[in-house]
This record gives sequence, structure tokens and C-alpha cells, in this order.
Amino acid sequence: LNRIKASGLKLRFCTNETQATREKFVKKLQGMGFDISVAEVTAPAPAACRILKERSLRPHLLVHDDLVPEFAEIDKANPNCVVIGDAAENFTYANMNEAFRVLIGMEKPVLISLGRGRYYKETDGLKLDVGAYMKALEYACDVQAEVVGKPAEMFFQSALAEMGVPPQQAIMIGDDIENDVGGAQRCGMRALQVRTGKYR
Amino acid sequence: LNRIKASGLKLRFCTNETQATREKFVKKLQGMGFDISVAEVTAPAPAACRILKERSLRPHLLVHDDLVPEFAEIDKANPNCVVIGDAAENFTYANMNEAFRVLIGMEKPVLISLGRGRYYKETDGLKLDVGAYMKALEYACDVQAEVVGKPAEMFFQSALAEMGVPPQQAIMIGDDIENDVGGAQRCGMRALQVRTGKYR
Repeated sequence: LNRIKASGLKLRFCTNETQATREKFVKKLQGMGFDISVAEVTAPAPAACRILKERSLRPHLLVHDDLVPEFAEIDKANPNCVVIGDAAENFTYANMNEAFRVLIGMEKPVLISLGRGRYYKETDGLKLDVGAYMKALEYACDVQAEVVGKPAEMFFQSALAEMGVPPQQAIMIGDDIENDVGGAQRCGMRALQVRTGKYR
Repeated sequence: LNRIKASGLKLRFCTNETQATREKFVKKLQGMGFDISVAEVTAPAPAACRILKERSLRPHLLVHDDLVPEFAEIDKANPNCVVIGDAAENFTYANMNEAFRVLIGMEKPVLISLGRGRYYKETDGLKLDVGAYMKALEYACDVQAEVVGKPAEMFFQSALAEMGVPPQQAIMIGDDIENDVGGAQRCGMRALQVRTGKYR
């Protein structure tokens, strides 16, 4: 990372992290010694907030407690859509039923998903990611979620625009063959899969 | 029900009920005044047990506590498949992760689902049914579940065989357009949808 920054190459961190605000996420990485700032991070929650504002959507949130502050400025009264993120311990039976009831009660259900990952690895083992729970709600309500975050093309395009770099001159580095590599390639970027993290 | 029985027509109760043993389910209906016995009930759990025995499968169970006795005679040590039913309160984040880990750890994941309903209605509101959680595991493990119960054709065929009646001479009555009506029609039966229960 330091060598990339020293070389003058432009750099952006594209994360599907939705278990924490960008501030908290960046602080954690800084604490591990990484040279990173909030302004360098492209993340699903702020992208979703832009969409909610543009379309006058008021979300019912099924997200991690630590992500809620990202939606502080969003009107959440009388919801007309559901936003689902990697809610982790908040993926309870009661919370899933509640999100389902909000969706099924709409004339035309709107489901926005912060990523569509299948699973990820933590120190105590593999965990189901938001994509699995998104599929559950999609099936129950016969609706297709709008995915914000990797591997959505729009997400990579935002990151490229923020750097002012065309896709042909950019390379994506990640450990997920679909979210990182597949999404970037469909945008015209090159991509490199690292065999760390959840690689199996 | 009494008029059907008095008329001499053959009758069978086809249920996707997986929140209780057949014994408990029948007792509840008897308590409500219905003339019904365990021998008249076709249900997913005993159908799944037949499959498990035939194929030497040892299940990891993600089912309702009250259904567990139906699997009493099944070897569950060192599981080589996952059986999912409408686990209700047992659909916790931890239990979903555990079932996922068992599946993803197999060379060729085997997922058996006791029904594939989207949702059902209880006195306190709509609830996600087993189908939603089945989809979550299917997506996470890139596997297709084998569905036991309505609307699987084999399930209706079992019920017909138990009565000794050809499909053309049978009619299915239920409140679910897909599980009851669709499944029966694909078997060559006629079907009638009642506008009670979860009908919306």
C-alpha cells in the first residue's frame, strides 16, 4: 500500500463493508497501520443514501447497528422501501419477518441491498453474507433487489469517476472472484484475485 | 369434512406442517372438532425420513423443536446432508450459519427442504416460510434443494397411492395457489382454491 501511494498511482478502497460507518472502518485500518482516510473509501451505504434522496425513498433499515449513523440524515418515517445490509446478529427471525411485512405491504415492493455477497470468513468461521438474506426476501416477495455495492457496475464507475481514471487504466485487486474480479471486469477494468481472506 | 366422510369419498390430509409431529398436529385438529386420524395425514417429515434411509443420508436438522421426534430413528452423527423445515424461532443467525457451514463443507452439498412456501399467516401476522430460508442456503452454497412436500409431484403421488385413487378422479382443496393448486394440477389432479387462510 505504501509503495502504491509512493509511486503516484491513484488509489481507492472499494468495500462492501456495511457493519460499520466509514469512519469506524477507516479507524480500524489505521490502527492496523494502514495509510487510509475516509475520503479514499467507496462504500455501499453513502451510495444508497444518494439513491434514497434522488427517488424520495424512506427506508425501513435491516442493517448492522453500527451502520445506522450513515443514514442519519435520511427520513425513515412511514417507509416505502427496505434497505438490507449485512446485519449480522440483527438477522433475527423477528427482524426478517418485519422487513418482509414492510415489503409485502407495498403495492410495488422496493428492496435495496448493500451488496450481494454469499458469505465471508471471520475468525470464528464462515458467516452468511447479505446476499443470502436478500435472496430470502426476493423469493418471499417475488421481487428483484437493486444491488448497491460490488459487483454492481455503477459502484465501480463511481470509484473510477472519483479518481478521474478510465476503466482501461485501472486494476481491481480483491479476494472475491465475483464481487471484486467479475464486477470490475464487466466495467472494462482489469482485475487481480488474491488468494488471501476468504479464498478457498 | 363430515359430509365428505359420510358420502364415502376417499379423503387424505396433505399438509406441509413441519412445526409439529403428525401426532400433535392431529390432536390439535381433533380438539377443534375435526374427525381426523394420524393415518390419514401425508406430511413432509415422514417422506423425508424415507429418502434419508434409502440414500444413507445423515441429516443436520434445521427444523422446529417440535418436529425433531419425527426423526428419532434417523442417524444424525457426522452429517452428510442438511434438512430444513419451517424452523420458526429456530431460524436464528447462529443456526443459519451452522447449517450453511455443514453444507459448504461437503464436496457435493445435499439440501433437503420440507416444502418451499414463501410465507404464511398467523394470528400475529405474516411469517416467512421455509422456502425463503431454503433460498438463502441455496444461494450461499450454489446448490439446488430437493423439495419434499407440496408442491412436489412425488408428494401428491404418495397421497394418491395411499388412497388407491388415480389423479383424474381426485380433487385437491387448499388456500395456496402454488403449493396446493399448482402442484396438484401438475400431477393431473383437479384443484380448488379456497379464499380463506392466507389468501390475499
